[in-house]
Amino acid sequence: MTTQKTRILPDSDLVALRDLAAQLRVDSIRASGAAGSGHPTSSLSAADLLAVLLARHLRYDWSDPKAPTNDHLIFSKGHASPLLYAVFKAAGVISDDELVGTYRKFGSRLQGHPTPALPWVDVATGSLGQGLPAGVGIALAGRYLDKLPYHVWVLCGDSETAEGSIWEALDKAGHYGLRNLTAIVDVNRYGQRGTTELEWDLDTYRRRVEAFGCRAMVVDGHDLTSIDDALRTARTATGPTVLLARTIKGRGVPDVEDKPGWHGKALPADIADRAVTALGGVRSITVAAPMPAPGQPAVPTPAPGPAPDLPRYERGAKVATRKAYGEALLALAARPDVVVLDGEVSDSTRTEAFADAFPDRFFEIYIAEQQLVGAAVGLQVRGYRPFAATFAAFLSRAYDFIRMAGISGAAIKLAGSHAGVEIGADGPSQMALEDLAAMRAVYGSTVLYPSDAVSCAALVAQTLDLSGVSYVRTTRGSYPVLYDNGDTFPIGGSRQLRGGPGDRVALIGAGVTVHNCLAAADRLAADGIDARVIDLYSVKPVDRDALVEAVRITGGRLVVVEDHYPQGGIGAAVLEALADLGEPVRMSHLAVRGLPTSGTTAQLMDAAGIGVDAIMGAARTLAAR
Amino acid sequence: MTTQKTRILPDSDLVALRDLAAQLRVDSIRASGAAGSGHPTSSLSAADLLAVLLARHLRYDWSDPKAPTNDHLIFSKGHASPLLYAVFKAAGVISDDELVGTYRKFGSRLQGHPTPALPWVDVATGSLGQGLPAGVGIALAGRYLDKLPYHVWVLCGDSETAEGSIWEALDKAGHYGLRNLTAIVDVNRYGQRGTTELEWDLDTYRRRVEAFGCRAMVVDGHDLTSIDDALRTARTATGPTVLLARTIKGRGVPDVEDKPGWHGKALPADIADRAVTALGGVRSITVAAPMPAPGQPAVPTPAPGPAPDLPRYERGAKVATRKAYGEALLALAARPDVVVLDGEVSDSTRTEAFADAFPDRFFEIYIAEQQLVGAAVGLQVRGYRPFAATFAAFLSRAYDFIRMAGISGAAIKLAGSHAGVEIGADGPSQMALEDLAAMRAVYGSTVLYPSDAVSCAALVAQTLDLSGVSYVRTTRGSYPVLYDNGDTFPIGGSRQLRGGPGDRVALIGAGVTVHNCLAAADRLAADGIDARVIDLYSVKPVDRDALVEAVRITGGRLVVVEDHYPQGGIGAAVLEALADLGEPVRMSHLAVRGLPTSGTTAQLMDAAGIGVDAIMGAARTLAAR
Repeated sequence: MTTQKTRILPDSDLVALRDLAAQLRVDSIRASGAAGSGHPTSSLSAADLLAVLLARHLRYDWSDPKAPTNDHLIFSKGHASPLLYAVFKAAGVISDDELVGTYRKFGSRLQGHPTPALPWVDVATGSLGQGLPAGVGIALAGRYLDKLPYHVWVLCGDSETAEGSIWEALDKAGHYGLRNLTAIVDVNRYGQRGTTELEWDLDTYRRRVEAFGCRAMVVDGHDLTSIDDALRTARTATGPTVLLARTIKGRGVPDVEDKPGWHGKALPADIADRAVTALGGVRSITVAAPMPAPGQPAVPTPAPGPAPDLPRYERGAKVATRKAYGEALLALAARPDVVVLDGEVSDSTRTEAFADAFPDRFFEIYIAEQQLVGAAVGLQVRGYRPFAATFAAFLSRAYDFIRMAGISGAAIKLAGSHAGVEIGADGPSQMALEDLAAMRAVYGSTVLYPSDAVSCAALVAQTLDLSGVSYVRTTRGSYPVLYDNGDTFPIGGSRQLRGGPGDRVALIGAGVTVHNCLAAADRLAADGIDARVIDLYSVKPVDRDALVEAVRITGGRLVVVEDHYPQGGIGAAVLEALADLGEPVRMSHLAVRGLPTSGTTAQLMDAAGIGVDAIMGAARTLAAR
Repeated sequence: MTTQKTRILPDSDLVALRDLAAQLRVDSIRASGAAGSGHPTSSLSAADLLAVLLARHLRYDWSDPKAPTNDHLIFSKGHASPLLYAVFKAAGVISDDELVGTYRKFGSRLQGHPTPALPWVDVATGSLGQGLPAGVGIALAGRYLDKLPYHVWVLCGDSETAEGSIWEALDKAGHYGLRNLTAIVDVNRYGQRGTTELEWDLDTYRRRVEAFGCRAMVVDGHDLTSIDDALRTARTATGPTVLLARTIKGRGVPDVEDKPGWHGKALPADIADRAVTALGGVRSITVAAPMPAPGQPAVPTPAPGPAPDLPRYERGAKVATRKAYGEALLALAARPDVVVLDGEVSDSTRTEAFADAFPDRFFEIYIAEQQLVGAAVGLQVRGYRPFAATFAAFLSRAYDFIRMAGISGAAIKLAGSHAGVEIGADGPSQMALEDLAAMRAVYGSTVLYPSDAVSCAALVAQTLDLSGVSYVRTTRGSYPVLYDNGDTFPIGGSRQLRGGPGDRVALIGAGVTVHNCLAAADRLAADGIDARVIDLYSVKPVDRDALVEAVRITGGRLVVVEDHYPQGGIGAAVLEALADLGEPVRMSHLAVRGLPTSGTTAQLMDAAGIGVDAIMGAARTLAAR
């Protein structure tokens, strides 16, 4: 745009700041009004905060949103999107027509809640309590990896402080001394359906924030000078800061100010018109915002190089895939953008070798899985390749974060160890038995479940440059290496381990059950029943061609075996791939149907009906049909 | 058992308490040693705390674990199960043989982490940070419903205070003034792979706890007298209390005391033998624990009565299923054990009518979905029927809690509103599109997705006495009532809305897509293509008979339409049910394959390919094959 830009810098220039704040209010009202929905009152309460931040503290080259030195602005209260988009108009990067004409409409990038469809949006928000954890990840990158002086500003709602994830985030901000992070809490004392738990009890907020290791600053969120002072202090603080801004919901529109019942509603035309007039009408201020100082990240951009020197394993040797995962991470460390995070179980997930060798690129998140994933999402905003690991069962703790990572298109690499009944004596609380279903259903996800060390290392290496959420399920116990070093395992592929054109049945497994399938096939062969064995290591996307061939060769006789509950896992992946085939399929689906207990691996697999005997029985029954 | 019971009551009787603590230590060492796995050092740190609690403060009739007046004891640090089971031996309810002979073995109820397979265990633990939120639910029942003086004691680990859910729980404990709740934090400064974030910084713990509205008491966790004083104070406090106990991991076994590297490992035989001897050898103290005073809950046990007087709807009238959900809850309120919880969106989920009419049985949990589900789990421990609602998308925040509720066998009733792209302009962060996959994969779950108000109310009523986790997915918009009042909708059933023996294709939907299927069928009929329409309102369990009949009538021509991502949802449910049928199926699977944006319901459904035109197109293609 060619509009003259207004630079609002002198300390005394409050009039210009007031005008800017009025414009943000007017535009928030107009955008949501034109859409007929949205959250104008939640935008109005924070307009003064954003006016000061945009005009005077957010160092951002609006012509180059990918500039490494840019500050970061996250609306953790994503429903205040009218305000965010009004800020973008004031920054000169979207037009008034786009703002008022397309907000919340089909085909617009100005969606109801912000997503990275907009180049100035780092992460999708709208599920409360997630923007701040992502901001922690960006701030970790800034302080420990990029070593650039950019600042991360996160606008939070007061309602979302009821989410435990906010406290996981502040705790980690304090622990890692993230002086480059500022949360601005818009304490307007109203949630969706009424007042918040703490209303305007700023003192309790302050004590909580301080106890969690951050500096709290209580300000009147409508006093421009106070806001300005606080933001300046935040930028130069020695640790993470939280601005607790006492605000009024609907501020600037007397008809709705501090009144219940106005959350998430466009203002009626009469109220909106009066307010716009009183606020000075439509403006077109474009702010010349502060620019970042030039700089480059301390971590070099990875140059195209030779393929990673993956660990090698001897065929037949017993190696746990979680061990291969850890060793693959070590090999990938040659890439300077690889970073690893763990939820305080690195001795189990086997990320500890990376942690020991590359402590500067390892982040211990302790037992806070939401923040674990949130930090990974933030790190990939800055171009890093975050590998985050914990027990597979405990990734369920972060499922909303993983869901939102899918919406963000965030390239994060998750690993879950200790999957299934295979883990044995620890019992069902530690057994991931629903993770494949949950992870498959994440938008844009890749789900991998290697059976041996060679394939595990090869698959982990391929996730390095993969877009979206990828998930590798690893196994606790040690099982024989099945493949040769250098064998390839394309994502979306599979491996046929036994079989030929005379196969009467196909045994399909992934991960640990592949070994049971192999044992069953060998015993079936001794009985004269030829069985194909497919290692379906790529659960999503799945190798439809191999499955169709198996159906055609065997007359549709499939035994699918999974260490997972029967719903939504490998069986479902097979069936979904074959759904429109139109040929008869007789699939015997062996999965964990009862609630497991403690026991040995063999006892629990047999009890669940996914052991060798069960596979043989199912295969014989099918072959006889 | 017939052993003589030891009553340890006089304040001066420290010797007996010390002996009891030594027994708990010895038994923790022996049980894990015999199992060859487990967490003895995490048990040793808390043995003194539990000795004093068991002998002097836990008012519990061990002969009647269901007694309404019993205190509750939850090991939120479930990995300290050796200690918990040693407590059970000391209480006289399990034998030494069972403890040492069966712990962690297949078939034993003494599993690696506690589950309600044991009558003295309220909830399964082992995923950290969940025992305390469940304890909050029990304490809510005690204070506000039962109105009985039982106390809820929760043993927490220090590592798990990194979980946000702990702070959601303490916040709610403070908000609801749960003076009947005490968390005992075993601050042994070690996690699994090293020291904790805060180590022995008891002052920071104290400030956090106090800021979250609870009374903190810092004690030496090995000083029996201090523990005793603190527990007595806790019982009579005016609000929730947190004992911050400074302890030593491995206490009592000098070889491992306060040393890293001993988490989750049975002690080697030589160390164990020395320790057992030093601790005085094997004892068989059975404690005569304090008994609760007699009493009865203030809420009467519901008597068998007439079926609930469900809301009635006029066929063809447009009513949102979320509205019917709220009205069904009102009808169910005739049952005194029905309680409702919401995550601060009761105006959206439509639980607000219940909240207004029965404020004493409604719990506002604010935006803390983990605590929302945790509270429901706790309330059902005391026999209540908790209905917990939020946006379907945000139940993903509590997925680990729902997973664990499945393991607990907890009878909780979840409702998720605003499912799918149907919601329109708010965008993907608010759209549940993976919930059916995730919820189907929960052990023992029931998943329901009604298409109209009549069926919604009927299904919600049936969840009342259902065991396990049930989930009802409701819709934001208003759609025509399809059924007559009084029609029945058995769980595991379906409804055929169009069709006959000449059907050439079956259109299978659930919830909102049923309406699209009906419109498509009517237009297909005008073109001479008879289409069966099945309302698959029961997604789990699914009506296999109806699906098989549809396959046989149509020659396997199925169009499955769902407002959900393609993985693991209704399509998978259909396919899993037909997996072993052995007849050709040509299923056209219409689901949300791209990332949705904002827009109107019709625009988004059409863009996703789940609208009427897409259904007609798929049906025509199939019919022509």
